[in-house]
Amino acid sequence: MGNLQICDAVEIKNVRIGNSFLGKYCDLVRDTVLPYQWEILNDRIKGKEPSHAVLNFKIAAGLAEGDFYGEVFQDSDLAKWLEAAACCLEAHPDPELENIADGVIEIIEKAQREDGYLDTYFIIGSQEKRWEDLYECHELYCMGHMTEAAVAYYKATGKRRLLDVMIRCADYIDRCFGRESGKLRGYPGHQEIELALVRLYEVTGCERYLALSRYFLEERGRLPNYFVNEWKTSRGRRTFKDNTYVGEPDLLYNQSHRSVYEQESAVGHSVRAMYMYSAMADVARLTDDAAMYQACRALWKDVVCRQMYITGAIGSTHTGEAFTFAYDLPNATAYAETCASIGLIFFASRMLQMDTDGVYGDVMERVLYNVIPGSMSLDGKHFFYVNPQEVWPEASEKNPERFHVKPVRQEWFGCACCPPNLARLFTSLGKYLYSCREDTFYIHLFVSGQVTVKTKHGFFRLNISENYPWSGEIEVTLEEVPSENARIAIRIPGWCREWSLFLDGEESASPVKKGYVWISGGLKAGMRIRLILSMQVELMAADPRVRDDAGKAAIRRGPLIYCLEEIDNGKNLSAIRLDVQSAFCMEERTSPISPETAAVTGRGFRLNEDSWGEELYRPYDAAEKEVTVRAVPYCWWGNRGPGEMMVWIRT
Amino acid sequence: MGNLQICDAVEIKNVRIGNSFLGKYCDLVRDTVLPYQWEILNDRIKGKEPSHAVLNFKIAAGLAEGDFYGEVFQDSDLAKWLEAAACCLEAHPDPELENIADGVIEIIEKAQREDGYLDTYFIIGSQEKRWEDLYECHELYCMGHMTEAAVAYYKATGKRRLLDVMIRCADYIDRCFGRESGKLRGYPGHQEIELALVRLYEVTGCERYLALSRYFLEERGRLPNYFVNEWKTSRGRRTFKDNTYVGEPDLLYNQSHRSVYEQESAVGHSVRAMYMYSAMADVARLTDDAAMYQACRALWKDVVCRQMYITGAIGSTHTGEAFTFAYDLPNATAYAETCASIGLIFFASRMLQMDTDGVYGDVMERVLYNVIPGSMSLDGKHFFYVNPQEVWPEASEKNPERFHVKPVRQEWFGCACCPPNLARLFTSLGKYLYSCREDTFYIHLFVSGQVTVKTKHGFFRLNISENYPWSGEIEVTLEEVPSENARIAIRIPGWCREWSLFLDGEESASPVKKGYVWISGGLKAGMRIRLILSMQVELMAADPRVRDDAGKAAIRRGPLIYCLEEIDNGKNLSAIRLDVQSAFCMEERTSPISPETAAVTGRGFRLNEDSWGEELYRPYDAAEKEVTVRAVPYCWWGNRGPGEMMVWIRT
Repeated sequence: MGNLQICDAVEIKNVRIGNSFLGKYCDLVRDTVLPYQWEILNDRIKGKEPSHAVLNFKIAAGLAEGDFYGEVFQDSDLAKWLEAAACCLEAHPDPELENIADGVIEIIEKAQREDGYLDTYFIIGSQEKRWEDLYECHELYCMGHMTEAAVAYYKATGKRRLLDVMIRCADYIDRCFGRESGKLRGYPGHQEIELALVRLYEVTGCERYLALSRYFLEERGRLPNYFVNEWKTSRGRRTFKDNTYVGEPDLLYNQSHRSVYEQESAVGHSVRAMYMYSAMADVARLTDDAAMYQACRALWKDVVCRQMYITGAIGSTHTGEAFTFAYDLPNATAYAETCASIGLIFFASRMLQMDTDGVYGDVMERVLYNVIPGSMSLDGKHFFYVNPQEVWPEASEKNPERFHVKPVRQEWFGCACCPPNLARLFTSLGKYLYSCREDTFYIHLFVSGQVTVKTKHGFFRLNISENYPWSGEIEVTLEEVPSENARIAIRIPGWCREWSLFLDGEESASPVKKGYVWISGGLKAGMRIRLILSMQVELMAADPRVRDDAGKAAIRRGPLIYCLEEIDNGKNLSAIRLDVQSAFCMEERTSPISPETAAVTGRGFRLNEDSWGEELYRPYDAAEKEVTVRAVPYCWWGNRGPGEMMVWIRT
Repeated sequence: MGNLQICDAVEIKNVRIGNSFLGKYCDLVRDTVLPYQWEILNDRIKGKEPSHAVLNFKIAAGLAEGDFYGEVFQDSDLAKWLEAAACCLEAHPDPELENIADGVIEIIEKAQREDGYLDTYFIIGSQEKRWEDLYECHELYCMGHMTEAAVAYYKATGKRRLLDVMIRCADYIDRCFGRESGKLRGYPGHQEIELALVRLYEVTGCERYLALSRYFLEERGRLPNYFVNEWKTSRGRRTFKDNTYVGEPDLLYNQSHRSVYEQESAVGHSVRAMYMYSAMADVARLTDDAAMYQACRALWKDVVCRQMYITGAIGSTHTGEAFTFAYDLPNATAYAETCASIGLIFFASRMLQMDTDGVYGDVMERVLYNVIPGSMSLDGKHFFYVNPQEVWPEASEKNPERFHVKPVRQEWFGCACCPPNLARLFTSLGKYLYSCREDTFYIHLFVSGQVTVKTKHGFFRLNISENYPWSGEIEVTLEEVPSENARIAIRIPGWCREWSLFLDGEESASPVKKGYVWISGGLKAGMRIRLILSMQVELMAADPRVRDDAGKAAIRRGPLIYCLEEIDNGKNLSAIRLDVQSAFCMEERTSPISPETAAVTGRGFRLNEDSWGEELYRPYDAAEKEVTVRAVPYCWWGNRGPGEMMVWIRT
């Protein structure tokens, strides 16, 4: 670890995000998603499945009557929303929003028990059952999310009320869990509190929280396994849902099958995995734990080199919303949960703090330009929980193996983990774009706007201007640099094979190291850096061990992955193959955000369906007809009515 | 219906099956499978999951003590075995086997209640719950199978004991079910009794049984739906398995979603569907019901033209062991249950009785030469319940969507419906090969041996000699013909594009009608008919609407479908594509039954895996290396150790 150069992330408040591809999503979240979700959380949208999340807190606080309603982790929906609101406030003060937040924080404070415990499911239901079913009951998960919200709200507003609530809660958790006698030697069934405690440590400086996070990670998977023991004892071999008998818990599912130090393959529930790996990276960094860092590296590699869809989606099976194994990436049945890819960004950004290697930015970019914007409709009110990698609407309706693959985005879900997670991602986008270490400033992602960072010697203030990903030209103006020795490192995306760099108009042969071009020596205010990334439409192949993509290609332009839709190419996209000799060209752009924008066309061939009668099978002939194939950015598919969609196309 | 020419099936006892591809399976079943299964049914094979099927009857008969054990339909395992034994005895008298059968029949008779009821699950358990849960409890299903066994045993031995048992049982069913007041207006949750009652009618001549079968079919799916009503009343919205609450029954699952007359698409549990369609064909034929015949035609077409795998397997999803919808034939996750394809033969043979069209024989042949022999190992002691159409062993182990696809045949199953069903199919094979109407004799399948049929004017006695499917030469010697007007119709397989016919050595231009070549005029004893079917290795394509097979080919030679195995072609069969210009040649044969026999080889290409490092995705290039592709008959795959298998190969 000693040789790693730890970089500091940039605070949200120091970043102004301007008009850009990602900026538009930030605006959409702030202007539409966040207010809409607040209405949902308060059950004020007619005809929607009630959320009850705010009402649960009111009931727990004694401010309303009624029963708990929703998933056992319903509290986390409000926590995530509150964190998103806080991030919003950090960048864009808004008294009305702050007022709403203060109001709900007051309720949350009242809902907390005197000892610090805070989980409305058990407060309303049966408090004596606290911690009895860590495997299923998500208490630590919900407290983790609320802790993250508290930290974010404190950073945004300076107000301590929620922070103090969650400090009391963390202290209570610390009194309950640990290796000391009289404490439960358990850990969460759904990881989340681990990374939240690190954030609490970072804002309070209280080492106990870091130690508690580390305890949760280190204890996980030890023998005898806590969850097996819990199942035999406090759970009475039953499930809390309907009190029926269940078999021994699946330890792979929540990554408690072995010590985290010994985990090399991503397994089990993919969101749990991502949150755990993120916490592991945090703890490795803050406690200088080389063995944990090595485990993070191995898990990172397994995820991105062996179990990640080309859109940045992860999770190959809906059974357990889980990873399966290396190179198993079925397109038609992918789970690819939105929250999992959000978690992958958390993991990537933490790895980046320890190692400024371009691969981490590459993955953040892949996720942010493909699966994540694809999970939300352009109106900000419809969402995918599962992000299809291939859609045949009739199969989604009639083949149970594909019921989970919805061909259209849904308005809201009973289990609504993803939409508020999206909201907190986009409202906190500022912290993923840059980092800074001493007098070196790193640009990881290209987003128009301004960033200001204070270093020991002064300020970095940069203006970024781009029309990315439509154009590969990025202009960085240095408005202030802290010293003559200051350096700027800009990520050259992994997808880019040709690029050039101009410093004040003159081409520069600046050196590249681990995916970043380094500009050093003589930096001064007013200097203009122009990076030109050559951007062509390219066909991509997957490692041949990905059985489902063998003999197929995906279309990519810059960071964007494309897909075919039925509306452009007719029914039965499987019948189409791409002519790999054909040059795919971008159509002229007509409107700023629309699937029509940035479509690409090229030549392909289509199996001749007309010649088929009743026979299901007949002697092979290669009859095809030439067709024009039209592909649109994956992130915007499904905005023009239901129909087939396909990322990997035969060649 | 008036214009249909009803043909009589030939009795098993009139057919002698000689040494041949299918004959070897008949021998294997008689010599190995049947004795082995008898040991299993009596729990005498150490280390196997107990069957308890015979013991359940002993307990019900008061001859042993204990509880019922097994599936609620465990009785049917014994019934199917008994039917298989009866068919065996019909063709090959065997006092020892008959003695065993008589012994168990005595037990069955003692187990029957005085009123005629016979189901050990309820007799041992709770008799007052009879008929309370037709949706799940399989009583009529078990009685149906035992009725089939009784008819077969009576036909084979002339002994009435079991027949009388099942007549009493049928009479009891008749007293319980029907539209008359005081009767239950129900029908079976798993169809089977319908076709069994037809067989009972055929052997007894008692019209009531035919009428009862017709009632069960006609009542099915009427509104208000019986199963919904039953769920609300006698089932108390619970499931009998663990008495927990369950939702409204799935009516598509057991084809009670609408009147059988209105069913046009094959839906739901595929075995239930096949047994129902078979009974529908029987009733259509025997009651001259044109509307029901039309429903059978529509359902037949939907199954074989839209929902059948190229191996003759059916059932696209393991959820509900069910059909999905037209052209949805995923290879990697196919359910393809053995019993369903056996049911497809039942259905085909019944359709053939009404319409001697070659398409029915084509389907029987497809099933009998591919999926069915493939479901059994060459030692007769290992079986597939699910017949994989594509295997990646690691996925079968690690991807829950593919857990049901076993890469190796299993020794026995707790739910052992398939192995005894296989046994009764092969022991009764004689009745599927030929049919006869007045002085016309039909040959549907090519199996060496002899057949004798009595007609109004005398006897047909034919000797058939073949080395099919290795050779396309079939020789038929007429040992006796009933009259000068006698005609022979021989099926020209649908796969065959060139053939010639010789009568006593002279080529004949006999006419072809609906898939049969007709030889008429001047038939006489001693005449030799030689049919030469040209047999090449061919590549096959699926209708392009079968998404999973687009751009792929299957290899076929004669009736045999081929597949690639890892042992011949290395790991990752997806990386291989066939050179469609290459001629595939059959290797020299070395042993009579072995996967090595009859392998074919041709040229293909393989994606270059060696050039891939850590990157999961990279710009497409078409780099491939030439390879020799070796394919073996699908029916013999998986006999050389575990490994990948693939039927549909990229082109």
